[in-house]
Amino acid sequence: MKVGIVGASGYSGEVLVKLLLGHPLVTLAAVTSRSNAGKPVAQVIPSVRGLDRGLKFTDSDPAALAADDIDLYFLALPHGAAATYAKALVAAGKRVIDLSADFRIADLATYQKYYGDHHAPELLPSARFVLPELTSPEWKTTAKIAAAPGCYPTGMLIPLVPLLKAHLVTREHIVVNSYSGVSGAGKKVEEAYLYVERSESTKAYGLVKHRHIAEAEEQIALHTGATTIIQFNPHLAPMRRGIATTITVPAAVGITIGQLYETWRATYAKSPFVQLLASGETPDTAHTVGTNRIDMSAVHDPRTGNFVITSAEDNLMKGASGQAVQIMNLWCGFSETAGLV
Amino acid sequence: MKVGIVGASGYSGEVLVKLLLGHPLVTLAAVTSRSNAGKPVAQVIPSVRGLDRGLKFTDSDPAALAADDIDLYFLALPHGAAATYAKALVAAGKRVIDLSADFRIADLATYQKYYGDHHAPELLPSARFVLPELTSPEWKTTAKIAAAPGCYPTGMLIPLVPLLKAHLVTREHIVVNSYSGVSGAGKKVEEAYLYVERSESTKAYGLVKHRHIAEAEEQIALHTGATTIIQFNPHLAPMRRGIATTITVPAAVGITIGQLYETWRATYAKSPFVQLLASGETPDTAHTVGTNRIDMSAVHDPRTGNFVITSAEDNLMKGASGQAVQIMNLWCGFSETAGLV
Amino acid sequence: MKVGIVGASGYSGEVLVKLLLGHPLVTLAAVTSRSNAGKPVAQVIPSVRGLDRGLKFTDSDPAALAADDIDLYFLALPHGAAATYAKALVAAGKRVIDLSADFRIADLATYQKYYGDHHAPELLPSARFVLPELTSPEWKTTAKIAAAPGCYPTGMLIPLVPLLKAHLVTREHIVVNSYSGVSGAGKKVEEAYLYVERSESTKAYGLVKHRHIAEAEEQIALHTGATTIIQFNPHLAPMRRGIATTITVPAAVGITIGQLYETWRATYAKSPFVQLLASGETPDTAHTVGTNRIDMSAVHDPRTGNFVITSAEDNLMKGASGQAVQIMNLWCGFSETAGLV
Amino acid sequence: MKVGIVGASGYSGEVLVKLLLGHPLVTLAAVTSRSNAGKPVAQVIPSVRGLDRGLKFTDSDPAALAADDIDLYFLALPHGAAATYAKALVAAGKRVIDLSADFRIADLATYQKYYGDHHAPELLPSARFVLPELTSPEWKTTAKIAAAPGCYPTGMLIPLVPLLKAHLVTREHIVVNSYSGVSGAGKKVEEAYLYVERSESTKAYGLVKHRHIAEAEEQIALHTGATTIIQFNPHLAPMRRGIATTITVPAAVGITIGQLYETWRATYAKSPFVQLLASGETPDTAHTVGTNRIDMSAVHDPRTGNFVITSAEDNLMKGASGQAVQIMNLWCGFSETAGLV
Repeated sequence: MKVGIVGASGYSGEVLVKLLLGHPLVTLAAVTSRSNAGKPVAQVIPSVRGLDRGLKFTDSDPAALAADDIDLYFLALPHGAAATYAKALVAAGKRVIDLSADFRIADLATYQKYYGDHHAPELLPSARFVLPELTSPEWKTTAKIAAAPGCYPTGMLIPLVPLLKAHLVTREHIVVNSYSGVSGAGKKVEEAYLYVERSESTKAYGLVKHRHIAEAEEQIALHTGATTIIQFNPHLAPMRRGIATTITVPAAVGITIGQLYETWRATYAKSPFVQLLASGETPDTAHTVGTNRIDMSAVHDPRTGNFVITSAEDNLMKGASGQAVQIMNLWCGFSETAGLV
Repeated sequence: MKVGIVGASGYSGEVLVKLLLGHPLVTLAAVTSRSNAGKPVAQVIPSVRGLDRGLKFTDSDPAALAADDIDLYFLALPHGAAATYAKALVAAGKRVIDLSADFRIADLATYQKYYGDHHAPELLPSARFVLPELTSPEWKTTAKIAAAPGCYPTGMLIPLVPLLKAHLVTREHIVVNSYSGVSGAGKKVEEAYLYVERSESTKAYGLVKHRHIAEAEEQIALHTGATTIIQFNPHLAPMRRGIATTITVPAAVGITIGQLYETWRATYAKSPFVQLLASGETPDTAHTVGTNRIDMSAVHDPRTGNFVITSAEDNLMKGASGQAVQIMNLWCGFSETAGLV
Repeated sequence: MKVGIVGASGYSGEVLVKLLLGHPLVTLAAVTSRSNAGKPVAQVIPSVRGLDRGLKFTDSDPAALAADDIDLYFLALPHGAAATYAKALVAAGKRVIDLSADFRIADLATYQKYYGDHHAPELLPSARFVLPELTSPEWKTTAKIAAAPGCYPTGMLIPLVPLLKAHLVTREHIVVNSYSGVSGAGKKVEEAYLYVERSESTKAYGLVKHRHIAEAEEQIALHTGATTIIQFNPHLAPMRRGIATTITVPAAVGITIGQLYETWRATYAKSPFVQLLASGETPDTAHTVGTNRIDMSAVHDPRTGNFVITSAEDNLMKGASGQAVQIMNLWCGFSETAGLV
Repeated sequence: MKVGIVGASGYSGEVLVKLLLGHPLVTLAAVTSRSNAGKPVAQVIPSVRGLDRGLKFTDSDPAALAADDIDLYFLALPHGAAATYAKALVAAGKRVIDLSADFRIADLATYQKYYGDHHAPELLPSARFVLPELTSPEWKTTAKIAAAPGCYPTGMLIPLVPLLKAHLVTREHIVVNSYSGVSGAGKKVEEAYLYVERSESTKAYGLVKHRHIAEAEEQIALHTGATTIIQFNPHLAPMRRGIATTITVPAAVGITIGQLYETWRATYAKSPFVQLLASGETPDTAHTVGTNRIDMSAVHDPRTGNFVITSAEDNLMKGASGQAVQIMNLWCGFSETAGLV
């Protein structure tokens, strides 16, 4: 099977190139980038030197891509741009896995509130937000576009959704603090992302109405049938990759940490990429970097009545490109872990 | 005036040595360390090469220290050990500024619950927890021992206490997440603190009943007359120094961000080390490293009704040794900022 | 084919575990560690959570290992200890790939000068130093023990040997400066390797008679038939993995940079893990981390008449465990790149 | 005395602002920056919050600066721009300390070869390259412009010049490798300097004819009366500040390490910022960061006959702004260490 990547010059694009070059069941046949068109892939992504089979970046005209013989395209583009490409590719009968926000939110008004105009609203009914561990499998036959979740939502939805569904926690006073490595901001050439500025620096940013909260809250509503408002506080930490998420949520009356773990175990018994750590052990971003895993654990604080849940993931793997490959694996009937372990 | 440091071989001890060697109004006349006795100070703390005036580490027999001509001692010792030294030094009429937890908690039972036996409970009435910006100034004449606050409590008490006192926020559902540089764990030679383990690693630790919460909650109770239970989630971040604290607290009914800032401004108008950043701007640990400042700001989240408050400080300066010098300055009638800017 | 690792608790052991768990043609059937005996592999090496197939660390009695059904053992032990295990395993007819220094040096007196007593000198004739790109292939049939080269020698021998053999450079005044990530020192729980000590720190260490120079100079002598003395200056740099090596060597009279590259190209045309960068482009450790590559390039400095050669590699991959797997691949007739890309 | 800084928005400008705000004998009365004109200093340089006395960036018209009442100006500008300002300021009778390369090289042809056109060649006779520890003190009365040395030249000249003058080492086959923190590249908003690119990355750059070698070789020639060509290999290391320099130089016949140290001791007996470490101990960039020191040591390698000399300094302090303040102190008759310890 031939696959392609549109917009492979950012950090998640780079990781996607590496994963697909090493995937045993697909051939990476096209990588596009307006700014890098004509350059060998290994010149732009030096970590794949010797592995790129002569592949070069091509320009990214939607019509030309639609006309080629590639079966499935990954879109690693800014939101807005992704919708335009999706339109042409879906019309040509290709499968699309979108890493942008354009098709993560089912409700158009919500999308517009957080992102502005949508360039292909008519495609929303054909698109599915696919968090493989939680999304009902019917998407594999009904979706034309699979939207890979954002990095932050992945780190909070996997721990929280089963607990909310099972009424083990309250819907009120949920506080999520996430600490992301700098690659989470994308490959932005701005002063704020210089080595000297970010090294030895931890700080909050984007407090109040961070875009990622829109898809997280919509998913929770869809999974549980009720609205939940979350206090989400994102931060930058001085590391390249990784997201550490700490969720404080009041336990429902009488619920024990044992019940929480039981629910998690039942939900994720067959999920190769979810690792439950014992209560009291806390996940570490460093242990997940380069893997497609999310590690998580929880404690009950008897002083406050809260559960404190912690998760760790690689923002470029389970938080972006690894998850996109996992989606492809499931969609194409491959082993879920193909090319990911 | 002559001052001395007992136990100057850890990270806060090192910073204290540097500050006191450069202080214009005191002479650092003794630094003790059992393991380094006999060694030149600059051999153990290479960053003061050329500045140590031939000072050597001495052994640290409490009786010998009590008999010398030094006016004021800083104790940079583990809790438990500090109390033993304080006893001898106070008996000899010396002032003591303690950087350990031994005299931070007025209530003996609380101390015992978090730290075990106390080795000098009879001294508790002569000791004061001194957070210079908040502690009522009578301590300057009544205290024999000034307990410098912990790094985490400093980062949460300065923002929170005035708001709780003024009833601008609720006492319930307060969630504090702090991210500390690795020096916050002290100079512990353990696998967990190796460069390779901590680099690129963010993780929670010590969830549930972290020791620092005891002094923070006691101080809040003393300042406000009411018990407040806080969810405190400490983390390690891959940096040498710095603590970033993010506090989520529900706003009291009808209270605006303007009122919050007004209260902060009124409280800290004369505090040279508290810097208020505009709402929407967030403090950055990197900007406070090497300074004795705490930078802080807040936003109101209309979706949740919470204030999200962020503070940043250098854990070894405002969180430990810088604050200890600030306490000395006030106690001795020096300018509050002497040796600190 | 079943393989085992003796002493898998250090950093190169960890990487070896990961590589062998993911290798398509072998089964990792035993991992030993005295200190971790009985523990699940994923508990000690959290990055392989979910991938360790229930494998546990076992104790490492040489006689017991000799009696098992494993075909090939990797020794990831300190020098000295490795020889003892090699003796038992070779006697039992197993192949041994040794990552220590014990069998890297053919000349016993040289070994003794740098490392002290040798615990199995009788095995030296059955052992081969195997740098796959340079060692003559007869080792595959004659060796009982394959000694994987050290990290620093790999980074200097691959660039230098072909140039010395072809007389493109002089034998005098060769200066090699290498900068290694902290994992190069092993998982040593010492103050010098704490995060706070190594972060933001670059420094030379082990100047004069660093052990690795012994094997490098012996190899050069064996390859070229002449003695060459190299000034080798190792350093620690504040990163987890990676070695950057910069070699200054006078060009032989009249030799051009074109001739240097021609020789390199001829030597490494079929070496999948050697990547030549254009003159003027310099290799970057970050681009090689996680790969088994060595990237290298050279410039001619007309002011000094020197070639300045730079190489970059991952000290735990091409500098240790990746190279050991490459050796296994070649020894067992697998594809050279199996399990390594 | 009033001083000003032209071009204070880069990293050395920032450090200069901090040093001068804290200097006990001068008043920082003007800081200019075209891009930041009108902004409070503490808004652009958050680490001086609370210390900036209301100072704002002003625009930087040379004529306006020439007309003000400031006695001495620091120029923290790119080369080329500095000369233009120097012309106006010198004409107005002000002292100028230039941190750029414009007045470091006495020989116009050499300047042009490395930097292109010079915008004020007529001022070269009034300018002096001032490395306080080595430059003959007559500059204090004769110079109108003091050129502060570059960061790399400082780290090689202080160790090398006395040895070359005393004929303890040869002039041939000198190899200098330097590893600089990322701030050494200046505050350049380019992809190459992003956190994600530089973290975990060590690499050579600018091999062959690095600009800094011009001033270093000219100084050596002026001090020793003979031409010396040096192989200089600069590198970037993943740290914010600091330069580690390793110099390999053949010992002159019969010269011992004792003689080397004797010469160093004699030369630097009264230099507060030069610290000699015992042979075998190596300087560490981390120990010099934030100080104006250069730490250095040497070993003799009997295998090669070379001395291996290592030095460490803070590129923004002794390598730039600290040294500029040291120059001011000497020029104005202040204590050499005023504002620097």
